[in-house]
Amino acid sequence: MPQYKLHCFGESGNAYKAALMLELTGQDWQPVLVDYFHGQTRTDSWRQQINEQGEVPVLEHAGQTFTQSALILDYLAAQTGQFGPQSEEEHREIWRWMLFDNHKFTSYYATLRFLYGLKKTGETEVTKFFRERATAAYQLVDQHLSQTPFMVGGRLTIADLSLAGYVFMPEETGMQLTDFPHIEAWKARIKAVPGWKAPYELMPRA
Amino acid sequence: MPQYKLHCFGESGNAYKAALMLELTGQDWQPVLVDYFHGQTRTDSWRQQINEQGEVPVLEHAGQTFTQSALILDYLAAQTGQFGPQSEEEHREIWRWMLFDNHKFTSYYATLRFLYGLKKTGETEVTKFFRERATAAYQLVDQHLSQTPFMVGGRLTIADLSLAGYVFMPEETGMQLTDFPHIEAWKARIKAVPGWKAPYELMPRA
Repeated sequence: MPQYKLHCFGESGNAYKAALMLELTGQDWQPVLVDYFHGQTRTDSWRQQINEQGEVPVLEHAGQTFTQSALILDYLAAQTGQFGPQSEEEHREIWRWMLFDNHKFTSYYATLRFLYGLKKTGETEVTKFFRERATAAYQLVDQHLSQTPFMVGGRLTIADLSLAGYVFMPEETGMQLTDFPHIEAWKARIKAVPGWKAPYELMPRA
Repeated sequence: MPQYKLHCFGESGNAYKAALMLELTGQDWQPVLVDYFHGQTRTDSWRQQINEQGEVPVLEHAGQTFTQSALILDYLAAQTGQFGPQSEEEHREIWRWMLFDNHKFTSYYATLRFLYGLKKTGETEVTKFFRERATAAYQLVDQHLSQTPFMVGGRLTIADLSLAGYVFMPEETGMQLTDFPHIEAWKARIKAVPGWKAPYELMPRA
């Protein structure tokens, strides 16, 4: 019986945030595959028993259930003593970027990648809209990373793991990654962390 | 010189979250109008001096600057001793809903309202897409509010103030509010809190 169970599926970058944290901190954990593409998270029973918000990831640990990737990362940082803030100011900076990530960086990019790269809608007014917004968020993060190797405090933290949720996904989005050289360099730094694995190596695909 | 300064503009529901918190807790505060629609938040000087993330609200207090509405609400709850969590479990529940709000409830609805109600694009593939996603988020919150008068702990908390950021905005979105009776009842409960004011009464319009 593993210490941590993570309800997830490989295509979910939000689940990857938690999976990579569990892996890099060396936890005893196991993925529980969620059949997302056949609507499991939309069923009444899943919502009542696993997560009312109808989302992955869901983490089970020590008889408790945790949802929302940013809260899961925060919990795991406290549990493991790794990749968390070392001061009140860092705590605020980490949350500031995790919130920006949830609202914009991951949100716009993940939706674009879902439509264009997974659902394969082709180019539509909707993909154009999300690409424009994702590009603005990427530019802002690229600018930030031109001045610091990691998002907060000069070392890998859960802020990086949050923002990195979807950036290693292999699907096409129509964005030119070479336009964001500081993000590319940051991705290389994350990949160089001992134990790093790609999303589809860590979690089964749905 | 007021104790709190809030960089904001009336049309921003994210700023309204902080403004309403300041007002309901009886703080000495003053709005600082941001000329959003003429691009002030996109200028280099504003980003360097006020907020790198290019967003309102920004709160100034005691020589410090705070951004991201959820973090500002959390800070003000700690400062004022009002509308915050009373236990670790409530803390997690409040953050769980504030994150859901940032990612989905506010995000989709605010974008729909911006396009359809403020920019007046008319109905497009993009407004249809956001209305569908906003509707799903509204249904989920409506379901939650069918079982509890406020989002967390049976009383008004910063989780409610976060989710309520855009629900009092008067602009048309093409959504039928009567489809969400529990949200309508919750809005009435919030409006009944002593000191409640609408967004355009609390902040100057841009």
